[in-house]
This record gives sequence, C-alpha cells and structure tokens, in this order.
Amino acid sequence: MTDQEILSSLVIPNTTKIVLLVMDGLGGAPMNPGGFTELETAHTPHLDALARDGICGLHDPIGPGITPGSGPSHLALFGYDPLQHQIGRGVLEALGIGFELESTDLAARGNFCTVDENGLITDRRAGRIPTQKGAELVEVLRSITLPGVQTFAEVVKDYRFVLVLRGEGLSGPLTETDPQQVGAAPLPVKALRPEAELAASLVNQWIAQASELLADRHPANMVTLRGLDKNPGLPSMQEVYGLRAAAIAVYPMYRGAARLVGMDILPTGESLEEEAEALRESWADYDFFFLHVKKTDSAGEDGDFERKAHLIEQVDAAVVPPLLDLEPDVLIVTGDHSTPALLRSHSWHPVPLLLYSRQCRSDAASEFSERACAYGALGRFPATDIMPLAMANALRLTKFGA
Amino acid sequence: MTDQEILSSLVIPNTTKIVLLVMDGLGGAPMNPGGFTELETAHTPHLDALARDGICGLHDPIGPGITPGSGPSHLALFGYDPLQHQIGRGVLEALGIGFELESTDLAARGNFCTVDENGLITDRRAGRIPTQKGAELVEVLRSITLPGVQTFAEVVKDYRFVLVLRGEGLSGPLTETDPQQVGAAPLPVKALRPEAELAASLVNQWIAQASELLADRHPANMVTLRGLDKNPGLPSMQEVYGLRAAAIAVYPMYRGAARLVGMDILPTGESLEEEAEALRESWADYDFFFLHVKKTDSAGEDGDFERKAHLIEQVDAAVVPPLLDLEPDVLIVTGDHSTPALLRSHSWHPVPLLLYSRQCRSDAASEFSERACAYGALGRFPATDIMPLAMANALRLTKFGA
Repeated sequence: MTDQEILSSLVIPNTTKIVLLVMDGLGGAPMNPGGFTELETAHTPHLDALARDGICGLHDPIGPGITPGSGPSHLALFGYDPLQHQIGRGVLEALGIGFELESTDLAARGNFCTVDENGLITDRRAGRIPTQKGAELVEVLRSITLPGVQTFAEVVKDYRFVLVLRGEGLSGPLTETDPQQVGAAPLPVKALRPEAELAASLVNQWIAQASELLADRHPANMVTLRGLDKNPGLPSMQEVYGLRAAAIAVYPMYRGAARLVGMDILPTGESLEEEAEALRESWADYDFFFLHVKKTDSAGEDGDFERKAHLIEQVDAAVVPPLLDLEPDVLIVTGDHSTPALLRSHSWHPVPLLLYSRQCRSDAASEFSERACAYGALGRFPATDIMPLAMANALRLTKFGA
Repeated sequence: MTDQEILSSLVIPNTTKIVLLVMDGLGGAPMNPGGFTELETAHTPHLDALARDGICGLHDPIGPGITPGSGPSHLALFGYDPLQHQIGRGVLEALGIGFELESTDLAARGNFCTVDENGLITDRRAGRIPTQKGAELVEVLRSITLPGVQTFAEVVKDYRFVLVLRGEGLSGPLTETDPQQVGAAPLPVKALRPEAELAASLVNQWIAQASELLADRHPANMVTLRGLDKNPGLPSMQEVYGLRAAAIAVYPMYRGAARLVGMDILPTGESLEEEAEALRESWADYDFFFLHVKKTDSAGEDGDFERKAHLIEQVDAAVVPPLLDLEPDVLIVTGDHSTPALLRSHSWHPVPLLLYSRQCRSDAASEFSERACAYGALGRFPATDIMPLAMANALRLTKFGA
C-alpha cells in the first residue's frame, strides 16, 4: 500500500476549506553571498503576520539537489509522487489547452518547423509563425487518417500544436523527433518500451502524411513531435482526498497539471486581483483551492531580482488580504520550486512554505523568508508531505490504527 | 534487507541500560495561536535539566499529517515499521490481558450487546454489564466447538471479551460484525483476502452458536466482533536488538503492545510512584525498560489542558528523579503521539523527545518543550529512528562496513 492509499483510507468528511497559494518559482537566493533573497527583500507584512501565527518550513519538490520542472513539482504539491508518476509534456500541453484527454489517449507536443530540399531543419520554429497561421495548418493536419485510431490536432500558440491519438493498444513513452539542432533531419519515433511499438508505428505514419501535406507550405513545411506519452490516468483529488478541488491559474500548463488530478478550472482574468476574485466567487462550491501566480517565476527566469521581489510584494498586498477575509481553515503559501534571479532558471533550492490553521502549533518564525523557514518547526520535508499536512490541519483525516 | 535487519546485524553485547519513558499523548498545542502548550506550561525542572544536558527533537510516529492509533505508535517507538506491521485490535486486546497468543492464532475483540426479537441491536454494550456478569457469559461461550480448531473466550472488562481461534490455515484480516449503530443487525464476517475464507467461515459458525446460547440471556443476548486478525508474529526485541526488555504499564493495551515484541511485563501498582518502584525492583534483570504513563493522554482526550500540564509535572517530580538515581546509560523521554487538549483527541503533531546519554552530543535546548524540540539537534525524524539512536547511545552497535 502506498502512502497515498493509506491517506485515502483515513479520509473523513468535513466542511473545512484549504487554500494552496503557489507563487511560481518563489524560492530565491542572494545575488551576493550573505545577502538577502528576493522574498527576504520584499516587504510582506501580511505574509509575515501569517508566518508569526503559523508554522514554517522548507520543502524539496523532488529531492535534494534536484531542479524540478513545472509538471513534476506541481504533482508533488498536489501529493502525487513525481518520480512514480512521470507525465509527458504532450499530456500537460493537451490538458493545458482544455483538451479532454481520455485515460487511454497518447499525446504529443508538436512544433511546426522549416526543412530544406534535403529534409534538414533550417528553423526549429518555422519563423515563429503567428497563431492564426498555426491554426490554418492544424486544420490541414486534421485530414490525416490512421488505421484503427482517431487523431486530433489542436493549435496551442504560434508554431505549437498538440497531437492526440485515441484508440486501443496505444502506449508510451516514445522518443522525440526534434533533433534539437538545425542542419539535421527530424528523427523517426521509436518505442521506449515493447508495448509502445504500435504507437510508434502509427505516429511515424502520421508524420509521413504530415510531411506530404505540408511540403509546399514553406516556412512551416514540416513538424517535430516531443513529449509523446499516454495520459497516466491519475486518481483525482476527489478520489484520493475526498476534496472538491478547483484551480485558478492563468497559464495553460498549470491548468493542465490541475486538470490531471481532477480539479475544476475556474474562469479568471489575468491580474492578481482577478485571480483572488475568481476564488472568492467560487468559495462556496469547493473544499480546496489551488491559486497559481506565474509572474514570480518569469521574473526569476529573466534574472530580474527587483521585479521578482516587487511581484511578491504585490501578492502580499493584493491576494493575501482577500484570501484571509474568506477565513480558510488552512492556508498554505509556498512555491512549486525556486527560481533565483541569480541563476535565471529553476533551481534545486528547497522552497519556503508557511501553513496557517487554528491547530497548526505555531513556531518561532517571525517573518516569511528562506531563513525563517530554514528554522521553522516543519523542518525540511518532501513536497508530497504538504497535502497530508493540509488534510490533517483541516481535520479531514481520522487516526491510523486503533 | 530492511533497516531493522541491518541494525540487528550490527548489535554487539554490552551491559548498558536503556530507559524509554513514554507519557501517552505527550505532545500538545496552545489553546490560542502563539500561546504555550501543556508541556510548555508545566513546571518541569528535572526534565528541563535533562534537556539541557541531552539532545532534543520531534518525531513523527507514523508520518507527517498522520494521526496515530496507540498500537501502531507504540510499535514505531519500539522500532517496528507501523505501516509494514499492521496489528489487529483483537491481537492487542488478547495480549493486553496476558493471553499467550501463538503465532498462528486469530484473535478478535468481542462485545456483548443487546438485540431485539428481530435481531436488531438495541444496545451495543449490553447495558454495560459488570465484569462478573461478562465472565459468566464467557463461560457459556466456552462450550462452543468448531471443526478442526480450538477456541478460547476470555473476559476483558465489563461487556468486553476476547475470542481466539487456534489451528491450521487461519488467516486474516476479516471484516467486523459491529454495525456501529443501534437499529441494525450484526453483520456477518467476511474475508478481506482469499486466504482468510476459512477463518471467516469458522467465525461465522462461532457467532451462530453464540447467538443460540445467549438468546435468553437478556440484556447480553448477542455478541459483536471487531479487529479480527492474526498475531503478526513479530521478531522479539531480544532477537532484533539483543535486549532483555521489560514493560511497566498499567493499561492492558500497552502491555499487549509490549508483549507483541517479546517484552516481559513487570507487576506494578497503578500510581506513578509504584511504576517507578516496579522499574527499580527489576533494574538488575533487564537491559531495556519501557515505562508507560497513561493519564497524560486521558487528560488530553478530556480537553483538560490544566490537568494534562499537572500530570506532566507529576511525572517530572515522581518518576524522573528515581529513574535518574538508577543511572541509566540512556534515558529517552517522549510520547507515543500528541493529544492536544485543544483537539480532545490524538493528533498528527510531531512529538517532543529528549535523549540523554553520556555521549549524546547535547544541543542548545534549555528546556523540554515542543518549541525547544523543534529547534533541537535531533531535528524532525520518524519514530522508528528512536531505537537505533537508543542502541547507539548505549554503545550496543558496531560500525557498518569496514
């Protein structure tokens, strides 16, 4: 029995509400040794007050030293072992655009690209064609037929699309066709497991037809496919935790990750205020809310320390007070991983987390910061512990054993 | 190889003595955010001195967020993985009354109950009949015979008894017959695994005979059975650690847990002073002593913060000094789980622990409290680490590898 199965067996009904506020890439690092991080630099009176009344710690999304991608780190936040459940990027992309994946579907992320007369790639993104042009070409791809399976092609954005195969006997994972350099030809797809041979053969047939159909469509005269795998068919948060769960997220990727675990996706505008308002509007309808803030990560990726600190301040001012007005029984504020401006990328650094509930047994942390969390009473723990802690603090678990 | 097997392979003989003092439900929580817990409120000069000289930390009995039952939490304290070894309540109850369970026995916890003329339960505890009446009825049940197995019925207390089946081919676990409500009929037993079918059939035959024999014994005219499973046949502490281990505990449940891992049960009175005296009297005969104090948990369950704090003070005054007079090589003081008066129940909160030995490498903790333990040098760790730490500090383990 896995931990998640044990947890499920302990779930009891309650009407309590849990909010998981995720600032993407929240964890940071000082630009100079001994200095302050982005979070430590930001003036965050509301988060500091929560840290004082709550309990703090640092979580490792995947494991010590491992820099997480966004898919696995969110799965871990939702309590699903990211090493056991490895999700193809195609699946996340399909879910992210709202495609209703079935559990036996195989999905791939596609790029339109440009090839020369010898079939060698000259531009991996087909001159970054606009979305409208991509949509036209996707329409062309929809005419492709394969024996025994249905195919779906859906535009994502610009030169990106999603390919889905639906039918019996499909399995992944498959190798990718993008050679990751210009001057090389797209690679054929290969099965990474024996049971994926049928899918590999069908995808290669699809690529051959796509190549013919696109031949005179320069610059987008070819495709590459990546992240080809099946929908892993995870148990939903309703099944695992007995929670009616909803997500508020602006970016497709995070909506996709949320949909993967059965969350409803709430309509929202793009601003922080609109995200907070979206949560308020659906407050009565759900037990668990995942509220995702993307821009902190983008600022970190841009190496913009000041902007990242400022965005954290905006979350403190614009999101935290309206959340607290709703009086959630459990409020958790954290990130899905660290994105220090210093590194201009995701990093392995453990991620600050604060948890507030009536029965959280608060610690000595007097501010929300990497330093305070390093000495918090939650200690350092795997991200997959977050949901058990949330459920316990929401009084939604009975005891284990007599 | 399991961790326990690695540990066993490292055991070396020594004459050192280990005392594990368990205050049941020791961990607490402040009644208001930011306030003091029961342990932090209690005046405990002897425990504080031990915390100063010793090393502190917080342990998770089962796992983060999981609220432990008493059986699994004690197994964890004794170093047995509580997820791997799930023990039926029937087994614990049988062991608790001193019944000598064999490794192939199947045990159940029984209740006498009252049913109406339609067989529907009207009182799940048969009007709480006195122990003497229960003993008479158990005598009646002893006349039941089953094909190919021996049966034992033993009175526990009031309306409670234990049923044990002994023979070949018995297996658990089985479902329970108590419908957990009045107005419903007792349920038949079902096998939870295919190999438990024989046991299920035999138990149902036993119940049918019991029903006939008790029919005119109103109010105790029927039985319900719960926690039906086999004795898991755990390796003893002697086998695992090379320790001659003894338990001092007033309540049957805890004696049962201790007997499960091969401890001798020492005779004791019910007061704290008598428990300490029982330990002193057998000091020469054992290497490991488990001393269990029940009342701290009961006070927490009653929501009586002050009484729980006062009981902790009594342990500090009445138990700790005579223990120290015996000069144990290793003294560990902890709980089996938390029972905050705030929640009036067991809880998931990690449990404060102090370890004192000549070579413990003491930390900065200057008092025994949840806060001090949260910052203790032992950090936050699973309860199954306690015995390896005890053994190491008792200089009873050799090194791993050359």
